[in-house]
Amino acid sequence: MKRLGNVAIVGVGLIGGSIGLALRERNLAENVIGIGRRQVSLRIARRAGAITHTTIDLAKGVAQAELVIVCTPVAQIADLVQEAARHCPEGALITDAGSTKQQIVAALDNQLSRGCRFLGGHPIAGSEKTGANYATAELFDGRVTVITPTKNTRAEDYDMLEEFWQGLGSIVVRMSPEEHDRALAITSHLPHMAAAALANTVTENYFRLAGTGLLDTTRLASGDTNLWKQILMQNRENVLKSLEQYHAQLQALHTAIRSSDEAALERFLTTAKKNRDALGS
Amino acid sequence: MKRLGNVAIVGVGLIGGSIGLALRERNLAENVIGIGRRQVSLRIARRAGAITHTTIDLAKGVAQAELVIVCTPVAQIADLVQEAARHCPEGALITDAGSTKQQIVAALDNQLSRGCRFLGGHPIAGSEKTGANYATAELFDGRVTVITPTKNTRAEDYDMLEEFWQGLGSIVVRMSPEEHDRALAITSHLPHMAAAALANTVTENYFRLAGTGLLDTTRLASGDTNLWKQILMQNRENVLKSLEQYHAQLQALHTAIRSSDEAALERFLTTAKKNRDALGS
Repeated sequence: MKRLGNVAIVGVGLIGGSIGLALRERNLAENVIGIGRRQVSLRIARRAGAITHTTIDLAKGVAQAELVIVCTPVAQIADLVQEAARHCPEGALITDAGSTKQQIVAALDNQLSRGCRFLGGHPIAGSEKTGANYATAELFDGRVTVITPTKNTRAEDYDMLEEFWQGLGSIVVRMSPEEHDRALAITSHLPHMAAAALANTVTENYFRLAGTGLLDTTRLASGDTNLWKQILMQNRENVLKSLEQYHAQLQALHTAIRSSDEAALERFLTTAKKNRDALGS
Repeated sequence: MKRLGNVAIVGVGLIGGSIGLALRERNLAENVIGIGRRQVSLRIARRAGAITHTTIDLAKGVAQAELVIVCTPVAQIADLVQEAARHCPEGALITDAGSTKQQIVAALDNQLSRGCRFLGGHPIAGSEKTGANYATAELFDGRVTVITPTKNTRAEDYDMLEEFWQGLGSIVVRMSPEEHDRALAITSHLPHMAAAALANTVTENYFRLAGTGLLDTTRLASGDTNLWKQILMQNRENVLKSLEQYHAQLQALHTAIRSSDEAALERFLTTAKKNRDALGS
């Protein structure tokens, strides 16, 4: 991608911080302006080398930006994009890194002021950890980033954002916002719920018996609760459906074991192993 | 622990191989006899340095053993222990490393010939990987091993087995076979089922969208299907109960999201995070 002048990152946690680090290490932007609500987060991101400038004033932070990336929890994204559009250079492209897309895109597509456009994105990378302390320049390397254009999206905006994420090492996948949210309900939101429900099933007297299997299977439950509450609420319909599909699988397993149907149990475990092995390590 | 002369390990996969490696690296046994059904597994274990002698003849393999450890899939353990008791030195102690205890102990406790005794054990260590290729001398280091004595267990046998596992680096926990199986249904067998059901919910078209969260949450589903079928069947009643408890949690989550009860959703996620954080990393 061609080197950018000023990139503004709104929200410099794990994702925003990692975008900043990757831009700087790959020399893809001259200035990376970190915009946050709290000086302490901005200081952490700056010390980590993720951003070159900091401000808590969004209007000021986006004033010179060619590209604005909103990396906050999903419930704040639409408002912050609208505010950025009122203060950034005319005709600038604004994107995000939110885990849900349908509501956000519906609120912003073709609706920004002063010739600015919103195009949604979602890097499928991250961790149960939060904050720029855990940011790394390699977070997106080899990972998929979904870009969610609509019928209003300009080809040059899509191309620019595709190049941007490819520049950070991502494999870009194009999906509609609706497709994205249906898919992520299964691949990301359901695993989070499965992990949280499992963590809630384990009582304290059993904690000392936890092996690596339980630790792996519940790891996601350590994620930021407020962030996840927002994701699950924003993708409510798909999330409910994914829970129902999961329940049907668990029910099939329960039936096989209850009726001592070893052939059915074996088929269940074999399909699961085949799927899991196909996902890679 | 005092150094042992001859230890016989029946089944030299990941667990049996790791016991052999740990015994040899810590210089806790003079000879470690690996007993298996297939020459190829025995060769792998010997090349890995896990055993000093190999045989496919159980009677010959246990003939001089002070301690016999059966590390096969659970469905074979009871028969192999009984066979070992017919051929090992009179009065020898036989133990196992099986993931279930109630059925195995019920079949063997106080029932062996020639003064031999069975005392059940279960090192809570392992991986979705199988085979002595993945064995390590550190597998049990800092991990819990459960020993499951009964009213028939001699104190000196318990002490010997406790010293044995402590010698391998384990933290020994004493539980009844019934308690063990109830606990492990929740801490180990349920995570496996949750992972397998999740892997079965993800359809192939979504595989490319898998992030590290899905990979972690489903990792257990890669485990050996035959081995897990046996575990789930042997611990059937507890396993069914654990699935029902898990279902109740998922149902509570579904209700909170369906009714947009954000306070309930937040409580659910917060308890899950608290539990998961308490489990450690």
